[in-house]
Amino acid sequence: MKIIGNMGKTKKSPQNINFEEKNNFEYLLNKIVRDVKISEGRKSLEDILRCIYRNQPISTKKIGQEVKLPLPIVSNVRTILERNGILKRSEKGALYTNYGLNIVEKNLKFRIKKDLKCPTCKGRGIILDDKFSKILEKVKKYSKMRPVVDTSIDQSYATPETATYRAAFMADRGDLEGKRVLFIGDDDLTSIPTGLSNLCDEIVVMDIDDRLLSLINEISNKENLNIKTVKHDFRREIPKEYFNKFDVVFTDPPYTLDGLKLFLSRCVEGLGIGGEGTIYLAFSHKPIDVYLSVQRIINSMNFVIYEHIPGFNYYEGSEIIGNTTFLSRLVGKNIKYPNEGIDLLKLYTGEVKPTLRYYKCLKCGSVYEIDGKNRRIENLICKCGSKRFKMIKRKKNKRAE
Amino acid sequence: MKIIGNMGKTKKSPQNINFEEKNNFEYLLNKIVRDVKISEGRKSLEDILRCIYRNQPISTKKIGQEVKLPLPIVSNVRTILERNGILKRSEKGALYTNYGLNIVEKNLKFRIKKDLKCPTCKGRGIILDDKFSKILEKVKKYSKMRPVVDTSIDQSYATPETATYRAAFMADRGDLEGKRVLFIGDDDLTSIPTGLSNLCDEIVVMDIDDRLLSLINEISNKENLNIKTVKHDFRREIPKEYFNKFDVVFTDPPYTLDGLKLFLSRCVEGLGIGGEGTIYLAFSHKPIDVYLSVQRIINSMNFVIYEHIPGFNYYEGSEIIGNTTFLSRLVGKNIKYPNEGIDLLKLYTGEVKPTLRYYKCLKCGSVYEIDGKNRRIENLICKCGSKRFKMIKRKKNKRAE
Repeated sequence: MKIIGNMGKTKKSPQNINFEEKNNFEYLLNKIVRDVKISEGRKSLEDILRCIYRNQPISTKKIGQEVKLPLPIVSNVRTILERNGILKRSEKGALYTNYGLNIVEKNLKFRIKKDLKCPTCKGRGIILDDKFSKILEKVKKYSKMRPVVDTSIDQSYATPETATYRAAFMADRGDLEGKRVLFIGDDDLTSIPTGLSNLCDEIVVMDIDDRLLSLINEISNKENLNIKTVKHDFRREIPKEYFNKFDVVFTDPPYTLDGLKLFLSRCVEGLGIGGEGTIYLAFSHKPIDVYLSVQRIINSMNFVIYEHIPGFNYYEGSEIIGNTTFLSRLVGKNIKYPNEGIDLLKLYTGEVKPTLRYYKCLKCGSVYEIDGKNRRIENLICKCGSKRFKMIKRKKNKRAE
Repeated sequence: MKIIGNMGKTKKSPQNINFEEKNNFEYLLNKIVRDVKISEGRKSLEDILRCIYRNQPISTKKIGQEVKLPLPIVSNVRTILERNGILKRSEKGALYTNYGLNIVEKNLKFRIKKDLKCPTCKGRGIILDDKFSKILEKVKKYSKMRPVVDTSIDQSYATPETATYRAAFMADRGDLEGKRVLFIGDDDLTSIPTGLSNLCDEIVVMDIDDRLLSLINEISNKENLNIKTVKHDFRREIPKEYFNKFDVVFTDPPYTLDGLKLFLSRCVEGLGIGGEGTIYLAFSHKPIDVYLSVQRIINSMNFVIYEHIPGFNYYEGSEIIGNTTFLSRLVGKNIKYPNEGIDLLKLYTGEVKPTLRYYKCLKCGSVYEIDGKNRRIENLICKCGSKRFKMIKRKKNKRAE
């Protein structure tokens, strides 16, 4: 029997509390929600507890992916639960103690020991056939050639599997065969498996990053994919000659509401204002109030959420956002720009939520503060010469607000 | 080389047209869209052609399920394509002629011969484990005891598989263990597999149909499920003692916008106005403009479409709506009634779209006209004594408007 921790910090604890009693356990849960500031509240905390129950032992990273919460939140919750004797730590990740197991089975009525996610398709609902499995092998090879991410414009690379599943998904839904497909940004190189499918009439990739465009060109030439690349800053309209020229657009915009509206506006231009078309949108899972704004923006453009799969996309290195995003297939008619205006100064997450991150050198242990604007992790070299770091902490950058 | 038909009726045809030429084929497609009045237009027609390409030979019913279009539309399209030499008929369903195959491969660039839907989960993303497989066997048995459907209140029975997958889906998402679950209408008996899962704290079923409630009571008593049933007409608020008492609500309302708003309002009452909670909504795939209204209603109640799976639910005997509906998991916070008013005279499809249906006796061939209000198919007995009929035609009931 242990006591309630305080944000994971060691504090002396005056009383022993028995969490087998429902009221005490509820008190603990509510305190954790308050202290750790879990925006979705009690429900998300239960998701963490349930996820560990069904998958133990499980790493913090994997919990974050499953419950779609940022890692620091999951990590704080885990620490408090450990301090209170409910969880313990093993090499393979978080585990319930016998005491903890008894508490959640009694008070939260947990009983399902293994989730029902389809083992064949991992919940995505589609599989890669022989053709797409071969495409995946090529994509794996090419994705190693990607340049270092530029976090100031929210770059973050989807895994080769994700890019290939996206292409297979679009192919399955009939959105590639004979279609003209536009990518509004493509740091994930989703255009490569799309091109390798050899199904589209035309593929155009627009992006602001020269490094990515030249890599796409290089692969396209080598594989004879006929992908056209256009350097473009989405703060401006896409070039007039590309208005109303496409059937399908794929985009994975910055995960801010203004970034979303901006990128979706460019999608609408490509499909043709007043016309119809399909958008594939990858975007991060948000707290409900923001999520509602996301869906209202989509509907305001006369697009229906025709299909919506949480956790479809996995990313490399971006553990901080829980590492997965949803994929939405949006079908529109009489399409138009979003109703609301766009704030061009709030496009990227670094602009909306200025954050300080602390990175520790994996070689010598030195710690560096990174604000993401003046100093970026991808350019950091330790005084010892190493370039390998691990993020150990992040906090709001009050100076920047 | 055949000619363009006219709504499937034989007409003399003055000219031979070669559809291998893209312009001629486009002309045919546009003419079909106009004549058959496919509300989603060219896109849906392509869906039909693609579906046959990937699944041939395929029955009209199966095409309707896959493309989510009403059977009479699919049937008319099929007939015109046959008359123009693009499709042919076999015992197992629609097939391309060699001529037709060449046309769609050349003009629509079809190349994927088999879709990528996951064979393990049929695209639903979850599987039935041993426990739910056993539950399915029981549900199959009990579903045979269901009374005859009452089409005047849009009853239409989901298959036992559908009911069981729904329960498994809710269980997987953590919405059953220790939860209080309300069913706003339950002609599908989804409460039975939910109860058999033995996970919930409480299950309450409200429905207007005494026959269903007594069947649910009978099964609940026999299996010791402890399901509580309440007879209720959803045109009125649910009884006050059930306000704010549930964590999760399941509903499969009448497929009209007013029916949707009404049933969702009752869900909100059960979850608690101003509170939070989860709704599972089964509803039919609609043309985009109506679909947009559906999603705007959901968002106006402060519910996010957290997950949205088209074609999740299959129904027995209701081939006319393409036989599948979507399943949406809606997560709400600060929840409220929908913004717009509800027209209590437009709840059921028979009230919104008065339809005359013609049924042919399978024994003697006599044909009967059914308006769904004064005369209903479930009560029909042929003069020859048979009760088995097949719908052969339907049309708008202009008298009723």
